[in-house]
Amino acid sequence: MSSINRQLRLKHRPEGLVRLGDFDLVEEQIPELKDGEVLVRVLYISMDPTNRVWMRDIPQYMPPVAIGEVMRAGGIGRVIQSRSAHYSAGDLVQGMTNWQDYLVFHERAGKAYVRLPADPGVPLPTLLGACGMSGVTAYYGLTDIAPVAAGETLVVSAAAGSVGSIAGQIGKIMGARVVGIAGGTDKCRYLVEQLGFNAAVDYKAEGWKGALKEATPGGIHVNFENVGGEIMRTVLSRMVLGGRVALCGLISGYTGDAKPADDFSVIVVNRLVVRGFLVFDYKKTREAVQALSGWIRDGRLKADETIADGLENAPLVLNRLFDGSHKGKLVLRVDPQA
Amino acid sequence: MSSINRQLRLKHRPEGLVRLGDFDLVEEQIPELKDGEVLVRVLYISMDPTNRVWMRDIPQYMPPVAIGEVMRAGGIGRVIQSRSAHYSAGDLVQGMTNWQDYLVFHERAGKAYVRLPADPGVPLPTLLGACGMSGVTAYYGLTDIAPVAAGETLVVSAAAGSVGSIAGQIGKIMGARVVGIAGGTDKCRYLVEQLGFNAAVDYKAEGWKGALKEATPGGIHVNFENVGGEIMRTVLSRMVLGGRVALCGLISGYTGDAKPADDFSVIVVNRLVVRGFLVFDYKKTREAVQALSGWIRDGRLKADETIADGLENAPLVLNRLFDGSHKGKLVLRVDPQA
Repeated sequence: MSSINRQLRLKHRPEGLVRLGDFDLVEEQIPELKDGEVLVRVLYISMDPTNRVWMRDIPQYMPPVAIGEVMRAGGIGRVIQSRSAHYSAGDLVQGMTNWQDYLVFHERAGKAYVRLPADPGVPLPTLLGACGMSGVTAYYGLTDIAPVAAGETLVVSAAAGSVGSIAGQIGKIMGARVVGIAGGTDKCRYLVEQLGFNAAVDYKAEGWKGALKEATPGGIHVNFENVGGEIMRTVLSRMVLGGRVALCGLISGYTGDAKPADDFSVIVVNRLVVRGFLVFDYKKTREAVQALSGWIRDGRLKADETIADGLENAPLVLNRLFDGSHKGKLVLRVDPQA
Repeated sequence: MSSINRQLRLKHRPEGLVRLGDFDLVEEQIPELKDGEVLVRVLYISMDPTNRVWMRDIPQYMPPVAIGEVMRAGGIGRVIQSRSAHYSAGDLVQGMTNWQDYLVFHERAGKAYVRLPADPGVPLPTLLGACGMSGVTAYYGLTDIAPVAAGETLVVSAAAGSVGSIAGQIGKIMGARVVGIAGGTDKCRYLVEQLGFNAAVDYKAEGWKGALKEATPGGIHVNFENVGGEIMRTVLSRMVLGGRVALCGLISGYTGDAKPADDFSVIVVNRLVVRGFLVFDYKKTREAVQALSGWIRDGRLKADETIADGLENAPLVLNRLFDGSHKGKLVLRVDPQA
């Protein structure tokens, strides 16, 4: 093992897309472990839109990452050294690994680092995606926040992404008619041909609003919303009276670029129920993870990941969430041997 | 009785505040009644923010008023001649009287014209306000859409207006701590001293956001929202996690003037439930009207009206809803003898 830990520390708050220069790549000696401490080799890091929000100094659901701080991120690692009775070398752990090669945590913070079974049953990246935060988000969005019933029409935006691709498939499992919105013909074909969506609308194509109308002839009952801006505005205008919106994310605004203004008036006109939610509010996610992994085993849910390599590339890899050049869960492989 | 009916017909779609010239004041002979028809002298017309929306050619919950059409409005009138077995001269009726001196309707449309008791128990303007659409809106907003519980903090915007003044008082009846937002010290004093609000915040005063913060030290549980724009944005930012919003109206945007953009992101950050509603969706309002008139009789609910005179002034009187120069329900008296 190396004796050097590399960390990506926030240098500037990025404007728009992230640049490599917005982070300092710092090398430091891995410290000697003290009593109760655990050393973890980071294997995979989850790349999430919320990472970009954490870089911004705006009101949000947790404090922004401070300038000079290691970039916050979830991930999976393997314990390589332990001075805690609760962890042994070889254990797999999942939690906030942050953007670094190695993580040292104290067993007092052990609640934040869940020990995984030696054989988790699905590939590790899937534990960050379909069976991780992304899948659990989709699950509660469509079972608790805006339950969708058989025969209803569900529209999912960012439908080829980590949360959207699972949300759409859950909608199908629940018997809904599912329409996905995604960018590009390739992704749209993927949604229909690979994931079994009833229809997909390419928001980068001319006339996409007409295509959405054609794909939702009876209006939209439930919107699982990840994007916001013009896409959300268009979807809301097509909702049935009393329609329900699970407001999961608003990625179109996360980089701080200008986006069309939101407009609450459609909520009154169509008498909508718009409910914002965060997966972190669900403290016990076992029900969700069991349902999701069961569906994967039964072949009813397809878990796709896009894997990128190299801790040093993390800032640019994150941008792929915003330029749309990925499918399914975007994961960074930090350990080439993982 | 006069043989001439005056009508205000929409000539131009107004920009910003309404001008007299946006309407044609047309005089025409009252036609001879045909079988089944009823002639009504309009007594009072309800002045509502939604009237202004009906003048705009934008998507809304009913078709906009067409150019050349009599302006649509609710009101109360007295039958002065009837060729229907269902109505007799002297009957009081409530429904869409529109902006005119006289109304002729056919008994086939009788469902739209509710016959009132000979002695309605409260003054006629109150039937348009606290015991009418305004009060019923407030009632369902706080009992069905975003129920408020004892001990919770309720914030009402446009709190001195027809709906807001009732909503705040209902909040007090339900045991909530009620904070009103209104324009001007006079209105704020009115809310606290006359209507029993716990506090009132003058959004026209400097530092009002700080005043709102001081008035809601434990955050805001329920927002009864009538205004939108910057006021709503400020309120939503102070809501507790899981807070509830009864989205009744967005008057700051009704005239089409530029307003600060809405922003959905606070709905995610604070995990809010935002529910739009329209009183017209409640088909049976008897429960609400009984509760409201009971509270008025018991002295727990104060029904205030601002009465303006003269059909010909209707366009300018309507503007008072937007410049805030009224308290309680704004009613136009069409018949000087009423």
